Amino acid sequence: MKINASRLQSHFEAMSLIGKIGETGTCRPAHTALEKEGFLLASEWMHSAGMTTRIDNFGNLIGTLKGKNPSLPVLMMGSHLDSQPYGGRFDGVAGVLCAIEAITTLTENGIIPERTIEIISFADEEGWRFNKGLFGSRGILGKLEEGELQRADKDGITREVALKEFGCDITKFKESEYAEGSIYCFLELHIEQGPVLDVANLPIGIVTGISGPLWLTVKLKGMAGHAGSVPMPMRRDALLGAAEIIVALNEIATQDPSTPTVGTVGTINVFPASRNIIPEEVSFTVDLRDIDLDRRNRYEKQLMDKIEAITKKHQLTYTISEDTNSEPRYCAEWIKDIYRNQFKALGLEARELMSGPFHDSLALSYACDYGMIFIRSKDGISHNPLEYSSYEDLSLGTEVLYGAVVEILKK
Amino acid sequence: MKINASRLQSHFEAMSLIGKIGETGTCRPAHTALEKEGFLLASEWMHSAGMTTRIDNFGNLIGTLKGKNPSLPVLMMGSHLDSQPYGGRFDGVAGVLCAIEAITTLTENGIIPERTIEIISFADEEGWRFNKGLFGSRGILGKLEEGELQRADKDGITREVALKEFGCDITKFKESEYAEGSIYCFLELHIEQGPVLDVANLPIGIVTGISGPLWLTVKLKGMAGHAGSVPMPMRRDALLGAAEIIVALNEIATQDPSTPTVGTVGTINVFPASRNIIPEEVSFTVDLRDIDLDRRNRYEKQLMDKIEAITKKHQLTYTISEDTNSEPRYCAEWIKDIYRNQFKALGLEARELMSGPFHDSLALSYACDYGMIFIRSKDGISHNPLEYSSYEDLSLGTEVLYGAVVEILKK
Repeated sequence: MKINASRLQSHFEAMSLIGKIGETGTCRPAHTALEKEGFLLASEWMHSAGMTTRIDNFGNLIGTLKGKNPSLPVLMMGSHLDSQPYGGRFDGVAGVLCAIEAITTLTENGIIPERTIEIISFADEEGWRFNKGLFGSRGILGKLEEGELQRADKDGITREVALKEFGCDITKFKESEYAEGSIYCFLELHIEQGPVLDVANLPIGIVTGISGPLWLTVKLKGMAGHAGSVPMPMRRDALLGAAEIIVALNEIATQDPSTPTVGTVGTINVFPASRNIIPEEVSFTVDLRDIDLDRRNRYEKQLMDKIEAITKKHQLTYTISEDTNSEPRYCAEWIKDIYRNQFKALGLEARELMSGPFHDSLALSYACDYGMIFIRSKDGISHNPLEYSSYEDLSLGTEVLYGAVVEILKK
Repeated sequence: MKINASRLQSHFEAMSLIGKIGETGTCRPAHTALEKEGFLLASEWMHSAGMTTRIDNFGNLIGTLKGKNPSLPVLMMGSHLDSQPYGGRFDGVAGVLCAIEAITTLTENGIIPERTIEIISFADEEGWRFNKGLFGSRGILGKLEEGELQRADKDGITREVALKEFGCDITKFKESEYAEGSIYCFLELHIEQGPVLDVANLPIGIVTGISGPLWLTVKLKGMAGHAGSVPMPMRRDALLGAAEIIVALNEIATQDPSTPTVGTVGTINVFPASRNIIPEEVSFTVDLRDIDLDRRNRYEKQLMDKIEAITKKHQLTYTISEDTNSEPRYCAEWIKDIYRNQFKALGLEARELMSGPFHDSLALSYACDYGMIFIRSKDGISHNPLEYSSYEDLSLGTEVLYGAVVEILKK
């Protein structure tokens, strides 16, 4: 193995102490002193890799290995060091630490690249603090939206205040943006956050693309009434309608077992929520994802038809709001080819799989080609202190990442 | 008409001012100064009916029209003057005010009964303040449970403190209990709280009995996971299981359209309740009622089988707790006969219907025969300021109630 597996492990162990909760958990919110502490630690390792470092005005940590020809578009790598509030040690961290290990190996092998290489720990990928994620990766591409800085966290601190306290100058965002064409490609290594590789007993896999989530909020309105006194045929039970829609969504998402389509209702709220009152109002969320946008659109239409029919049957009214509608974003074929060769060289089966969750790569996909590899997640668990990827798997992933960087630098 | 409809209406109007909220709402919690104010007003009307009044140690208001033979078991009538927090003007109030009107009419007609007649406004029928109802009606029958006085309301005031402040002596409960055999029968007039009479366009109806609710809390446990990354066949989605059970309950309760069986899921809670996380835990309540206990037990068994099969299919574990299991309590045939005759005399169709909600009659049913009549509820609405029963319907009900009292006094 070309990379240094024990150094990589020691970096994970050191980073896991910052914001540590319980035995294996992490709480390292975006734009905080804890994240800054993580940045400083990662910066030391970047310096060892021959990189210079800076924190930009979006709160991103950027390590730069200057190439012989700095006018060439940069090879960008990275992920994020912020965590979920009750998160684990690997989500995001892997993409930063494995990239640092790959570039350290590059430097140790005396390779001085033509093009500049940058490793970025993007600010606030997770998005829970201000209920809007991919902040840093959207920021450098000029993709922030109106009013984003005024979003407040649960303590009433706005993004603007948090950024200022972090040392960012929000009047100079422009200086931190990347010009069109200035990024050659983006490489992200990430834990799978799902069970596919674990079930298949494979350490790493190649991502085909990030499936676009369709997020809906469905509200049904019927008529409350005493649970003991309104005969069944006279009812307009909003929760019964919601239950039938949840069952229908599952049938729609599973109609073709050969496809990776997933449909989920993760939240549901009932009013008035009394055990002896027929539910009058129910709202629930729908999450529908597919790597095939046409199919997802067809399934969405099927769901709409079902909602129409079910609400009619139960005499309910309904509203549907579309909260997010992202298109699938595919990894570049040429980068997947490079990865396939790297897997082959290591004698690894190159399983290809869709990414359901989004990542900083999603933002970058609008600016350049990108490629991702996934590391096996034990039991598919993430966003939880139980999240676990072995150092063996992470090292294999880093080895592949390193090999890919070397290949890309030849282009 | 023998009763005085305009006096009855004026009593409703006067009572509706006590604890009035909005245009038509009432908030008159149990054991409070507002309820006491209602008691004092009702007491004046009881005095006009020739009754003496007192408040017992359970916080019940009792009006007594002494009979010629006070050793005979009493004819008891009544309901309650406490209301839901966001309640209407008729629930409970009707049973007290219409009884007062009936007895006033009796007195005005110079009828002096052999047996004593009592009208009781029972304390805390509604039960929301201390999360346990039928307090006064269970109290007089010695049916209070261990620890009831230590139940606290949302402000931390215990039932014990509330009763003391109301002027009750909780060390003398025994003095306020009724000896076995001392109640001849109990008559309650109540608004339907359901749509049956309204849909049938009938002003009043005869209650066959109070259906016993079976109350369950079902908890399902599956496995959380990212909504985007766990393939459908690998999921253990607790909300999908719950949705299938809710659909199954509806199928079970409606399998025989000729029966009054009702099944309701009124509350549901999801953990972790994030739109992009597969629900790991779901708990929901089940309310199953039937006037036929055998059928209700058969349906309960069917539900258990469904829960077993559905959770197995989705690899969920489950627990079920039985929170309440009440048997149906039937109205006395001889009292229903008297009512049938009264309806006939007024040329009214004597529709008989089950009571889904429970009432003070439920407690009394364990001590004596009881009979109930229902007054039409507009659109079946109750426990809401929109609750409405017309004074015409209430007068008709009172006329029937008066006729029934006269008949019962002949026995």
